Amino acid sequence: MSDAVHERRKSLEPSSDSGGVADQQPAKWLTAAELRSWLSVVRLMTWLPWSIDQQLRHDSGLGMVEYQVLAMLSESPARTMRMSSLAEVTNASLSRLSHLVKRLEGRDLVRRQPDPGDGRFTNAILTDQGFQALAEAAPGHLAHVRSLVIDVLSPEQLRRMGRDADRIMSRIDTSGAD
Amino acid sequence: MSDAVHERRKSLEPSSDSGGVADQQPAKWLTAAELRSWLSVVRLMTWLPWSIDQQLRHDSGLGMVEYQVLAMLSESPARTMRMSSLAEVTNASLSRLSHLVKRLEGRDLVRRQPDPGDGRFTNAILTDQGFQALAEAAPGHLAHVRSLVIDVLSPEQLRRMGRDADRIMSRIDTSGAD
Repeated sequence: MSDAVHERRKSLEPSSDSGGVADQQPAKWLTAAELRSWLSVVRLMTWLPWSIDQQLRHDSGLGMVEYQVLAMLSESPARTMRMSSLAEVTNASLSRLSHLVKRLEGRDLVRRQPDPGDGRFTNAILTDQGFQALAEAAPGHLAHVRSLVIDVLSPEQLRRMGRDADRIMSRIDTSGAD
Repeated sequence: MSDAVHERRKSLEPSSDSGGVADQQPAKWLTAAELRSWLSVVRLMTWLPWSIDQQLRHDSGLGMVEYQVLAMLSESPARTMRMSSLAEVTNASLSRLSHLVKRLEGRDLVRRQPDPGDGRFTNAILTDQGFQALAEAAPGHLAHVRSLVIDVLSPEQLRRMGRDADRIMSRIDTSGAD
């Protein structure tokens, strides 16, 4: 099908030829090719985090963001990060991260204390138990990420996907997250 | 940095040179390049659905999956789909979809009835009000998708991203979703 045909169809869904909402609207609709790619991306965004989360919870009792918190802390000097920086690198809002870290604190995986350098800030610190939990979870998690993503794409495809993800991210305003 | 160096570092996070969990484990760690791309994908998976959902809720009072339900129904013959097929195309489990469609039913946007051809199945049907809600939501949603994704990537980049998303999806077992 030519692009001109795509444009003429002005359809919300690629499978339709008839009577969609699209026929009534002057908006700039997606072409069939754009829609197909977009729906593939939506599908991935739905299922990939779910699958990653499932494996971690099932095998290690950790959610995906909990894992990210432990991993990021493990690589920081003194296994310590400011909560605000930790929120940034784990893609969590500060309020969501606070709840999550409180739960990890209840399991003795993380502790919090005021930043000695500036008491207005709170630091999160990975405990030895947290480090151990991460060490036990990491091999299974990485094997899962490899099997779904890293080993499925060529290095060049993976690099491009990361780069294009960054490109899209640069357009997303995350400041309103709560 | 060479790949050999990446391999030697065996680090969970690209920023670390010292004392990460990775030093203790025989698992096959990600290279720094792989990790960077993976974290970009994770970041996108976290924020893109959030942004899409935000715009829809704010401007149209619909969640992302609710929108998908209305859109998929609008393009089906007689604006009707079996619940099981609808679950499939909206990436929802049947139980999650049932709750969601019940809520849409409460707002008179969708109704359900037994499949006339086989009473064991339930059909979801888009109401006129549902069609109208979709028609009002669609232009803003599509403009948002365009501004974040479609207009940011070249047609070739978008096509590749969709194709690589399909490739990853083919590895994900979604049968355990509830």
